[in-house]
Amino acid sequence: MARPMTFAATILTLYPEMFPGPLGVSLAGRALERGNWSCETVQIRDFATDKHRTVDDTPAGGGAGMVLKADVLGPAIENVGFDRPILAMTPRGKPITQKRIREIAAGSGVAIICGRFEGFDERLFDHYPQIEQVSLADIVLSGGEPAALAILDACIRLLPGVMGAPTSGHEESFEDGLLEYPQYTRPQEWEGRTIPEVLRSGDHAKIAAWRKARSEDDTRLRRPDLWERYSDARDRPASGARLKK
Amino acid sequence: MARPMTFAATILTLYPEMFPGPLGVSLAGRALERGNWSCETVQIRDFATDKHRTVDDTPAGGGAGMVLKADVLGPAIENVGFDRPILAMTPRGKPITQKRIREIAAGSGVAIICGRFEGFDERLFDHYPQIEQVSLADIVLSGGEPAALAILDACIRLLPGVMGAPTSGHEESFEDGLLEYPQYTRPQEWEGRTIPEVLRSGDHAKIAAWRKARSEDDTRLRRPDLWERYSDARDRPASGARLKK
Repeated sequence: MARPMTFAATILTLYPEMFPGPLGVSLAGRALERGNWSCETVQIRDFATDKHRTVDDTPAGGGAGMVLKADVLGPAIENVGFDRPILAMTPRGKPITQKRIREIAAGSGVAIICGRFEGFDERLFDHYPQIEQVSLADIVLSGGEPAALAILDACIRLLPGVMGAPTSGHEESFEDGLLEYPQYTRPQEWEGRTIPEVLRSGDHAKIAAWRKARSEDDTRLRRPDLWERYSDARDRPASGARLKK
Repeated sequence: MARPMTFAATILTLYPEMFPGPLGVSLAGRALERGNWSCETVQIRDFATDKHRTVDDTPAGGGAGMVLKADVLGPAIENVGFDRPILAMTPRGKPITQKRIREIAAGSGVAIICGRFEGFDERLFDHYPQIEQVSLADIVLSGGEPAALAILDACIRLLPGVMGAPTSGHEESFEDGLLEYPQYTRPQEWEGRTIPEVLRSGDHAKIAAWRKARSEDDTRLRRPDLWERYSDARDRPASGARLKK
């Protein structure tokens, strides 16, 4: 069998010691040892040009915090190149989706730029439109590193040969625009609560129908945003005309 | 000066070696050394009762993957108790917000349950309604650990005494329902691109107005979901009546 391609992850950071970090153990760690992915870090500070190795400066126009300098990060980015998707983690970015994770995982690798402080000099994104500004969640982190770890983890588990069962990864949250159905396992009874009868029926069609209904119910209740998109798509006939619900 | 309270973080996980991990360096690492927060892990496997120390079992009703057992996780959760918010990281959960991060950071600590495999036995959430099911992003991770690291990082930077300038953390993304405005710093010119003139004007009112306009523009373009909520709130008069835009 041909050796599977190694997914090349490069992280531009001021804290290379954070990587692989939690991705060095468990599923991602075993995949790293096996060569399913590689983890390279680029110390942004190595591209500073003054004797103090300055990477940041005060925001133009005033304000708290420090901004990462374009004239330091620019050469660091050039050095990594643009042969793979290049992401910059920033709360100003586009929210990451499982769809984009799948696309990235299907490629040859990814480069992720981690900011610290008040963020990046905006001119970087004007000058390198190839950089995808990506947001992990609507929360503010001390830097892009924890976000990069989460993005990488989500990619790595999808790489060929990483997950045990090849079917894992299909019936799960977001894959069909719905939350996953609730799961149960032995014991049959726990603290007076039993596993739903249908799941013990052995009737695969009934089980599938119950799970679909629970996925839909939970998505409608918990994630009206996802539900709206899902039900819009479902109710839209192939002709392109839009049905009124 | 009174010693500031230590924010007590407890993580229930099968991989305690992942913590503090990246939170052991930089801002969070210095805060950990100073005692602004503490990092305790609970090995879920220690609560297994059979000789193989089994923590998971196959999903009732069939399907790929493994489900964390309620009769193992239950006692682990009881052991941690309910004196702080207790979160379970799951893609079925409610998306985390900066507002909830602020609330958690203002308290005495947080407990975070990290799943692996196909997730938790749903009866845990029926039995312990105190557990908040929280989702970091609409992506699927190999486990809750990278998500827990991101949540903790977001909390830690808000703890008293952790960030250098006390004003940091106010003018930033999501705090007022908008994305943050773009930032610039020296040099004045980089790759033929200059810092916007207004930011060099020294006119604080003009700078504030420009930043507000850029925040609004970028939010409208990049995050129509945030923009809808923001503009709804802005256009709603105090009487409670709703203005049509």
